[in-house]
This record gives sequence, structure tokens and C-alpha cells, in this order.
Amino acid sequence: MIKVIAFDADDTLWVNEPFFREAEEEFASLMEGFMPRHSSIKELYLTEIGNLNLYGYGIKGFMLSMIQTALRISEHKISVKAIDKILEIGYEMMQKPVEILPGVEEVLAELKDDYRLVMATKGDLVDQEKKLKKSGLDHYFHHIEIMSEKKVADFAKLVQHLDVAPEEFLMMGNSLKSDVLPVLELGGHAIHIPFHTTWEHEMIQHEVVHDNFYQAEHISQVVEIIKGM
Amino acid sequence: MIKVIAFDADDTLWVNEPFFREAEEEFASLMEGFMPRHSSIKELYLTEIGNLNLYGYGIKGFMLSMIQTALRISEHKISVKAIDKILEIGYEMMQKPVEILPGVEEVLAELKDDYRLVMATKGDLVDQEKKLKKSGLDHYFHHIEIMSEKKVADFAKLVQHLDVAPEEFLMMGNSLKSDVLPVLELGGHAIHIPFHTTWEHEMIQHEVVHDNFYQAEHISQVVEIIKGM
Repeated sequence: MIKVIAFDADDTLWVNEPFFREAEEEFASLMEGFMPRHSSIKELYLTEIGNLNLYGYGIKGFMLSMIQTALRISEHKISVKAIDKILEIGYEMMQKPVEILPGVEEVLAELKDDYRLVMATKGDLVDQEKKLKKSGLDHYFHHIEIMSEKKVADFAKLVQHLDVAPEEFLMMGNSLKSDVLPVLELGGHAIHIPFHTTWEHEMIQHEVVHDNFYQAEHISQVVEIIKGM
Repeated sequence: MIKVIAFDADDTLWVNEPFFREAEEEFASLMEGFMPRHSSIKELYLTEIGNLNLYGYGIKGFMLSMIQTALRISEHKISVKAIDKILEIGYEMMQKPVEILPGVEEVLAELKDDYRLVMATKGDLVDQEKKLKKSGLDHYFHHIEIMSEKKVADFAKLVQHLDVAPEEFLMMGNSLKSDVLPVLELGGHAIHIPFHTTWEHEMIQHEVVHDNFYQAEHISQVVEIIKGM
């Protein structure tokens, strides 16, 4: 019944969010002369949310939001060297090696002959393509879908583009808000695979109860779950 | 014989490059205390080319390259206010209204029933989706393909993903380097529609001679060209 399985990438296939947390800590260190660490991280978060419509997701937008926040909270008293340091934080993020999460490759290998596998992710195209290539996982995927958002309308466009019905589509990922709820609403299937670090913007506070929803504790369980569907 | 027609977006469907030229002029004004206008624009270009692998195409990368160039050529003596001004230049670029080029909509309307039309463009996903929506042209297109590069391998992936043979694929756009040469090399068809302003990086110095190549002077000629293929 399932024809296409879409995998979220960041924090589902490989580590991502912890690198943003580390970058935030470096940013907070730069801002310590102007604001307590916790407050500057909060200000950065507010800037990011405010820019989401304009910038979308990804490291470039994050870099621009860091610069904007630094200018604002220092009231233009930040040093130019600190701006340079912010650019450096971003370059380093972009050049991190890809850490594939345990169990991922085995699952892709087991599923690839029976399903069309796609990678469906937010973020920058250039960045995600590069990570996929570095990961060596690219041959498992039919193609990449970079989504500007993961709302119901975005998944509706995606299944149409993939030429399958929603009930033939299964999404798995670490965000209940982005990878699970909109897919269920559309009539698709979703598996949640939690990751220890989740961006505040991706959090929801309630439990998910739905016939097409499956909770995994670890990605190694998904083959079993799919067989049982 | 042609099944899919792909349209480049920037400077093929709507005005784009002149906004970058304007932004460069504003950047040069900010840098006038440090360098003659022509030199700072050249330095910016070198930064952009150096960052292309890391940032890809689009306004966010352009903003980051402007900031990096300003820091470098001022030897960190640029004011923080000027950095703020650079961010503003970028925001303004992102919020420009979309100016559809003359004749575009008529051509799309004439072709849409007989071919699958896609938009195939470099640049930022968020940005291009927003421009397509603002343009009101979205209903003509089956979907958007954002490409991190437009080289032969990228078009090979594209036609595979579109599930057509190269000879069933026609690309049209304003860049001989990106929209024409790689498509011809792959075995597809290409129409060049020149635009008065072309980014240096997209220029080639030789003439194109190929059986599958067609030169239009204006987009209004392409329906005639396609009928004659």
C-alpha cells in the first residue's frame, strides 16, 4: 500500500541540531559584554522566527540572523571583528563532517528495493545536497525534495509531484510538528523517530493519537513497523 | 516529440539581474572611503565566486558576500552602521515586486495544454517560490525545480527525475552557459532568449552552433520556433 517513503534529513539521517546549539553558545560568548548568555540566545531565536518567511531554513539565514541580532542588542556597539567571527561560525557549520545516525544505512538498504525512497527536508538546497553526497547515502534515494515549509499544503504539493495518493505516502522524521502532523492531516502515514535535541520552533506540547501514526524509539524499528502496517 | 519545457526564471520570466547591479552600486557607495567604486565591485565579484560552492546562488549568499567583502577591503575599519545598511540592501532586494517580462504570460498560456511546463532555476528556494507566487504565473507550471547548479550532470538528474528522455526535453533561458550548453551536451533542445543584463559569471565568449539550438530575439518568438522543430 505504501509506495513512497520520505525521510527527513537533519536529525533523522544525520546530526544537525547540536551544531546549531553549539553555534548559539559561541554567539552568546561574543555577546557577553552586552547581555547575559541566556538573553542573547533568546534574542537570536526571536530574530530567526521573525526572518523565517524571508530567509527560510538553513545556515545562511542563521548567519544573517546572528549578525542582525548582534547589531541590535549591542546597539551598534559590537566590533567589526565580532561580525567576522560570526561569519566564521557559519563557515564552520557548513563544513562539518556528516555524522550519520546509527542504524540509518541498514534501514535504507532494507527498504530501497520495495519502495521509492526520497529525502524530504527543509534547509538550503546547496547545503543538503552537499551533506547527502558527503554521507554516501545518495544512491539509496530516488531524489531530494527541498521544501520551503512542511505544512499540509506543502505535503499536498509533494505527493502530487510524486504522483502518489496520500495514503500511499509515508513520512518519517524527528519533528512531530513538521514530519508527522501535516502528513496525518493530509491522509498519509507518519513515523516519529525522536532525537535528543529539538529546536524550540519544532516542538509541540500535546500527544499524537491517530490510526496512521507510529511511534518509534529508534530508526532500527521502522522496518518492523512498516511490515506491520 | 518535446514533452517537457523548462523555463529559466530570473531574467527569462521576470527581471532580476538589474536588481543585483543596483545593489552593487549601493555597496560601492558604502565602500567609497576605502576603494574606488569599480574596484570594490570587482572585489565583491571575486568573493561571490569564491563562495559559490559554499553558498550557491541567491540573495542570502550575496548579502553574506557583501559583508565579507566590506570587512576585507576596509581591513575591519568599516562601521557597524554600514553592515546594517548591507542587511537593508538585501531585505529590499527580497521584497521587490516581481516584474514579469513582456510576452511571457502569452507564451505560457499557449504552451501549457500541449506540454508539461516546469520552472528550472538556480537561486534560493524560498525566494523563487515567493517570486513565482507574486507573479501569478504559478498555475502554468507543473512544479518548480530549484537547481544548485546548471551543469550537464544537474540536467541529467533533472530529466531522470522528470521521467523523460533528453530529446523530449526543451530548456529556454537567458544564459547560454547555464540554460543552453549543458542541455545541448545532454542531447536536449535549447532556446536562448537574451536579456540586456547578464552576470559576468554567466557569460561565454564563443558562438553556439548545434542542431538542437535555437536563437530567439524575444520570448514571443518561441511558440513559432517550437512548432517548427
